[in-house]
Amino acid sequence: MNGAASFDDAIAVRTAGEGRFDATIVEGWDVRGNPHGGYLLALVTRAMRHTVPQPDPLSVSATYLAPPRFGDAQVLVEVIRAGRRQSTVSARLVQDGIERVNAVATFGTLRDEPPHLYADDVAVPSIPPPEACLARELISTAEGEPIALHERLALRLHPDTGWVFGRPGGRAELAGWLRHPGREPDAYSVLMFSDGMPPSLFEAVGRQGVHTPTVQLTTHVFAHPAPGWVQGRFRTRLSAGGFLDEDGELWDSTGTLVATTRQLALLRTWEH
Amino acid sequence: MNGAASFDDAIAVRTAGEGRFDATIVEGWDVRGNPHGGYLLALVTRAMRHTVPQPDPLSVSATYLAPPRFGDAQVLVEVIRAGRRQSTVSARLVQDGIERVNAVATFGTLRDEPPHLYADDVAVPSIPPPEACLARELISTAEGEPIALHERLALRLHPDTGWVFGRPGGRAELAGWLRHPGREPDAYSVLMFSDGMPPSLFEAVGRQGVHTPTVQLTTHVFAHPAPGWVQGRFRTRLSAGGFLDEDGELWDSTGTLVATTRQLALLRTWEH
Repeated sequence: MNGAASFDDAIAVRTAGEGRFDATIVEGWDVRGNPHGGYLLALVTRAMRHTVPQPDPLSVSATYLAPPRFGDAQVLVEVIRAGRRQSTVSARLVQDGIERVNAVATFGTLRDEPPHLYADDVAVPSIPPPEACLARELISTAEGEPIALHERLALRLHPDTGWVFGRPGGRAELAGWLRHPGREPDAYSVLMFSDGMPPSLFEAVGRQGVHTPTVQLTTHVFAHPAPGWVQGRFRTRLSAGGFLDEDGELWDSTGTLVATTRQLALLRTWEH
Repeated sequence: MNGAASFDDAIAVRTAGEGRFDATIVEGWDVRGNPHGGYLLALVTRAMRHTVPQPDPLSVSATYLAPPRFGDAQVLVEVIRAGRRQSTVSARLVQDGIERVNAVATFGTLRDEPPHLYADDVAVPSIPPPEACLARELISTAEGEPIALHERLALRLHPDTGWVFGRPGGRAELAGWLRHPGREPDAYSVLMFSDGMPPSLFEAVGRQGVHTPTVQLTTHVFAHPAPGWVQGRFRTRLSAGGFLDEDGELWDSTGTLVATTRQLALLRTWEH
């Protein structure tokens, strides 16, 4: 782990006043120097959690305004509505007087019963177990350089993931496994995993010259994940006018659909 | 039209100061006395539009905190980040000092080229033309009473929609057509249509005793809709802990996917 901060340390916040929290954007939770969107989502949600009585983030919606830098940051939290069963809160991640991430979350209490699925085709995807999937060394090689995040976020991609071998399969879909080494997943992990896989667009067009910074990301959490690996399935349906979407489902090790996520991202391409 | 406000009148706002807009929540744009969520989404987005240079809402994410009443309301808008290509804005719809709707939107410029679809199975659903679909009279009968909104929002459901006849098909999916009578659709229509169909859950469990107030709704707009009917396809995948999700796609009359939407709603049921 190179001595870098654990997930819990990385998303820790310190109370600094009414609705004010200090945080530190740490190295190691980044992709090429840009702090990871899922990491930031978990961090601001941790700050918001301190201001409401309900324990669980049910829905978190974030807009990424400007990339934060490593170092000190402030999270300014406002309780929009405090309810008996649910509360809604907003957060602003600020550095140098510039708002970098804006988020709105609704907290409540996740129940223990598993979600009810309404369609036959909503089922945990059948993919090989993590040990039979592609490990981070292969993925980093495919990325052209080590990705700092991959040392802290264990990632295993489906063995048929073609872009890793320079042969994208043509469909903008990715499936794989996610976990924090040495830590069981919780709702904050799920928020982080919401943006935890490489862009599914890679499997349609390849990795080279494609960059997809997130603009808006919304995650709904439906259940506490069971211990073990979390399975992610992500898919891009369309791009238009320099934007693309990506939908994700996160399933825990018992086959429970624990969260859904959707993002709008910028689609940037350049020639090498 | 019963003399009720047109869509443009219903979502109109009047400047009342720096970042302050006056609006009127009008009757007729409601479901059983509750102002419609898509209508409110379009209204707050109209207010936000006045504060940014970019013409088009690309992404709007709203949290519904408390149902507004009919009558005067204020929309308080704050520009979070004004950029050259995109700007992000927040809005609060307030009545009687209580925040009813909180929204965050990113504006930009929709381009004229059609979206690129990355998967073969992302295609405009094949459904009968509007004139061969179920009209509002049938739907209102199925609802047990006329729905005010249905007089202002033309709605045609796929003829196989079973719940309308008391025989839900079992899959929580609905398809149909939407338009404003006498007005061609634009991005604001698309926002309204994001919540414009009855709950797709009806087709799984029937209409009786089911109520699904929206908690959080996010719509991404990818293209200006062409004139004519807009086709909607909505689907609920799961419910858990008193909540359910619903995903929607909106396709224009030329077969272009103009918007995607997702909501988290409360699932309330009661015995008759």
